[in-house]
Amino acid sequence: MEVQQVLHMNGGVGDTSYANNSVVQRTITTKEMHIVEDAILDLYCMSYPKKLSIVDLGCSSGPNTLFVISHIIDTIEMKCCQLNHLLPEVQMFLNDLPGNDFNTLFSYLPDFYEKLKEEKHVSLAQRLVAGVAVSFYGRLFPSKSLEFIHSSNSLHWLSQVPQGLQNEMGISLNKGNIYIAKTSPPSVFRAYLSQFQRDFYLFLKSRSEEVIGGGRMVLTVTGRGSLDPSECYSQWELMTQTLNDMVSRVEATSQYNHLNPPSFSSKYDQILTY
Amino acid sequence: MEVQQVLHMNGGVGDTSYANNSVVQRTITTKEMHIVEDAILDLYCMSYPKKLSIVDLGCSSGPNTLFVISHIIDTIEMKCCQLNHLLPEVQMFLNDLPGNDFNTLFSYLPDFYEKLKEEKHVSLAQRLVAGVAVSFYGRLFPSKSLEFIHSSNSLHWLSQVPQGLQNEMGISLNKGNIYIAKTSPPSVFRAYLSQFQRDFYLFLKSRSEEVIGGGRMVLTVTGRGSLDPSECYSQWELMTQTLNDMVSRVEATSQYNHLNPPSFSSKYDQILTY
Repeated sequence: MEVQQVLHMNGGVGDTSYANNSVVQRTITTKEMHIVEDAILDLYCMSYPKKLSIVDLGCSSGPNTLFVISHIIDTIEMKCCQLNHLLPEVQMFLNDLPGNDFNTLFSYLPDFYEKLKEEKHVSLAQRLVAGVAVSFYGRLFPSKSLEFIHSSNSLHWLSQVPQGLQNEMGISLNKGNIYIAKTSPPSVFRAYLSQFQRDFYLFLKSRSEEVIGGGRMVLTVTGRGSLDPSECYSQWELMTQTLNDMVSRVEATSQYNHLNPPSFSSKYDQILTY
Repeated sequence: MEVQQVLHMNGGVGDTSYANNSVVQRTITTKEMHIVEDAILDLYCMSYPKKLSIVDLGCSSGPNTLFVISHIIDTIEMKCCQLNHLLPEVQMFLNDLPGNDFNTLFSYLPDFYEKLKEEKHVSLAQRLVAGVAVSFYGRLFPSKSLEFIHSSNSLHWLSQVPQGLQNEMGISLNKGNIYIAKTSPPSVFRAYLSQFQRDFYLFLKSRSEEVIGGGRMVLTVTGRGSLDPSECYSQWELMTQTLNDMVSRVEATSQYNHLNPPSFSSKYDQILTY
């Protein structure tokens, strides 16, 4: 149940919401679109299926989500139009953790459906969108039930706090940090790597059972251009400083109030691990 | 887009939430459970399917929702146990309007899955729950994709404000009421009946296209024991009085503030129509 304790994207559509702060993710998604197009066309032209089940894993609740599935639909429709085929029925699953703001995501759907109906004369039965609220680290769908799997910018989130971030005495080996940082010892690097390997193996095993033979999967994962694992995570160091600052203020306030709060510092390791 | 303007169940889990004020619905659901059991067993024993797709239409966001699907699962499992069969994979769709509080509904899922895993050693792949946020008056699912359809205490909600509640001059024929009441003229009765007939026809037509041959459907609909259509809706008269009272207070306040609000009275007819 670690999942419930840790970081979620900000829901809603306010100034600090993920929906209004996901330009970087949109850029990544836009860059990968030609790969998505090629994959979905390959899939469609293999057997011209009449029904397609598609999932976006780690969809979050911003406009990027419907951007991806709209693009997938457009690609199929253009091909059908070229070939003079009837449009297939497409069932689209949007997946994220139960703490994701599905209410906001679903609030976009009436306009999405209306647009499909008005602009493309496509009925809702051909484009059903369903939400699936559970971690993608494990089986989600029935065996051999998905034709196309997509996940963008989500697989760097781990399923749980890595084991091995503390020594035998229970003391944090990564004190003051919330992820791999320049000051982290090699054992911390290894702990994160090991957790990623376990998670990614489980992810691939689960998807291999869910996808039909000849199905396609497009994954976009954050990488780095150097061997130094701490190099491209400067934003986490910035977040670390911010959190440290917040904790010191809480501690100062609680001293003033003669309270004795739990040590926030010891919780830092958990923050980046849903 | 009427759907967006009108009545929704109160979300969340607070004192006034639907989740904490749905005892009547729970009673109805409990009473129909033996019919659900018979139907699901009939279905299962017809061909012993390895996969089942089930939908609950108008699920809302209270504990009743998971009560129904838990009961369906238990029934299938007991039969499988008796027959020494492997459990089928069951995909369960929970449907309601986009304004339904799916976030609260999904927040129950981690415990629901955990319980299934611990008590019954059933994996999540065998019990996936997905949310579908769209009106059930129309097609939702691909052709012949559902084995079992359930809807309890939902079909009395109409898809839109009935036509014919105003005369040719645009004056309300049902002034002061929010639904059929003792003072409503016959034309208002006919308008509501006509809208129900159109909606229910569309509902049945849509489901007939989605359900597989030999599939089952259990619907529970509010009825009455008398020919007088206004008889069993005393709660709406109570609500009418409350709303009239609220409007008169708003009007009094706005006069005091020299404001000129739109007439709330003319909107009453719309309240009971999503």
